[in-house]
Amino acid sequence: MPRFRMKVEYDGTPYVGWQRQKNGHSVQTALQNAVLSLTGETVVIRGAGRTDSGVHAMGQITHVDLSRDWQPDKLRNAVNAYLMTAGEKVSVIEVLAVDDAFDARFSAVRRHYLYRILNRPSPLALEAKRAWWVTRDLDHEVMHAAAQTLIGRHDFTTFRSIHCQAASPIRTLDRLDVTRTAHLIEIRATAQSFLHNQIRSFAGTLKLAGQGKMTPEDVRAALEARDRKACGPVAPPEGLYFMQVDYPGDP
Amino acid sequence: MPRFRMKVEYDGTPYVGWQRQKNGHSVQTALQNAVLSLTGETVVIRGAGRTDSGVHAMGQITHVDLSRDWQPDKLRNAVNAYLMTAGEKVSVIEVLAVDDAFDARFSAVRRHYLYRILNRPSPLALEAKRAWWVTRDLDHEVMHAAAQTLIGRHDFTTFRSIHCQAASPIRTLDRLDVTRTAHLIEIRATAQSFLHNQIRSFAGTLKLAGQGKMTPEDVRAALEARDRKACGPVAPPEGLYFMQVDYPGDP
Repeated sequence: MPRFRMKVEYDGTPYVGWQRQKNGHSVQTALQNAVLSLTGETVVIRGAGRTDSGVHAMGQITHVDLSRDWQPDKLRNAVNAYLMTAGEKVSVIEVLAVDDAFDARFSAVRRHYLYRILNRPSPLALEAKRAWWVTRDLDHEVMHAAAQTLIGRHDFTTFRSIHCQAASPIRTLDRLDVTRTAHLIEIRATAQSFLHNQIRSFAGTLKLAGQGKMTPEDVRAALEARDRKACGPVAPPEGLYFMQVDYPGDP
Repeated sequence: MPRFRMKVEYDGTPYVGWQRQKNGHSVQTALQNAVLSLTGETVVIRGAGRTDSGVHAMGQITHVDLSRDWQPDKLRNAVNAYLMTAGEKVSVIEVLAVDDAFDARFSAVRRHYLYRILNRPSPLALEAKRAWWVTRDLDHEVMHAAAQTLIGRHDFTTFRSIHCQAASPIRTLDRLDVTRTAHLIEIRATAQSFLHNQIRSFAGTLKLAGQGKMTPEDVRAALEARDRKACGPVAPPEGLYFMQVDYPGDP
């Protein structure tokens, strides 16, 4: 069967998350319903990352097998037409024909996330549900210094949800940069894969560093404690964006 | 009475526009209601610009007179608390104490607007209601060249709504720049004041230039026609943002 790689953008606000669940509507179901309407096929669409409820994506990568071949841009437009008709907050940005060896999840060599904080006294109007609103002044340079203590291959038990299903808490964090432009603080995280709630756990802990409640050394000690209780309060989902996935052979 | 200058951000989507109207809820009413809840005073809040329904603001400037004096940051926080309680998509970004001579509308020396176009085949998910979705490829360099033919002091009859109430169609356009970053085309417009629908009329006409349906010379000829029928279809409100107002003595 022809396999297609689809890059997907979504507003995570109205969804229970990427993955199909019993308790509500998921992004995966929205896409699968659109394909069903289009082709009559009941498919399972695989995603590179399982984003939680409220988490957004600009570049979630998925794959799907269809019974007939499609010109990729036509498939993109047809799926989007059904998504729009259904009022979904999901858009297919790009479709590529790929061979059977491609797997959105298992072929991924690197995942990129962005966490956005709006650091200002005034509530968010235009950016409501698109960033974490933090009123207290944050020192982004201290946050960045604290973030650097987490780079590398570590046991990230401190920074994963107690519900995380990964077999191992060991991951290699390639990048965790904190930058500021006016009121907007951006945390950019890159790794081959992340644990459940890992980036939101980083963001919540780095916020404490930005407030002066933890030093970079304290953040390093929290990592080394390998103890979930050493983590700061997990940051809310609305600041998190799944940005990009890299695969072997990508330009 | 103490006078306060307030900088206001809003998501224009749910409102009939800045100005109080009989047919629905306005940003002005949202702010006036918040002040009424806070101080018990029925006030009229004046804005520097009358944005239409669906038009956003990052920097609408308003002024209001209150019976007692306030520490400006406390006033900002208190008004915001009432706006949030009421579920409004409006946020007061800054409050300054000003003297009686300051008038948000009549003291303004320059107004800055941004019009955002997302030029891509895929529908907008994260940017829905935050930009104009245009699928056909636009040449932003042609748009910019066409925009330059409109700079200066002119009779802008072609580019104003037939409902425009301004006494004169003559305005001086200081800036109309078109730039592109990936799929995002931004049109930045500056003038002391604008006519009703002027920027959306520019955006709709420049889009035709970007599609190759009008040359820059055609756009200049449309201006010189002083005829509303020479204008392109008016661009939708969701792409327009009221960004900033300049006043004498501002830093």
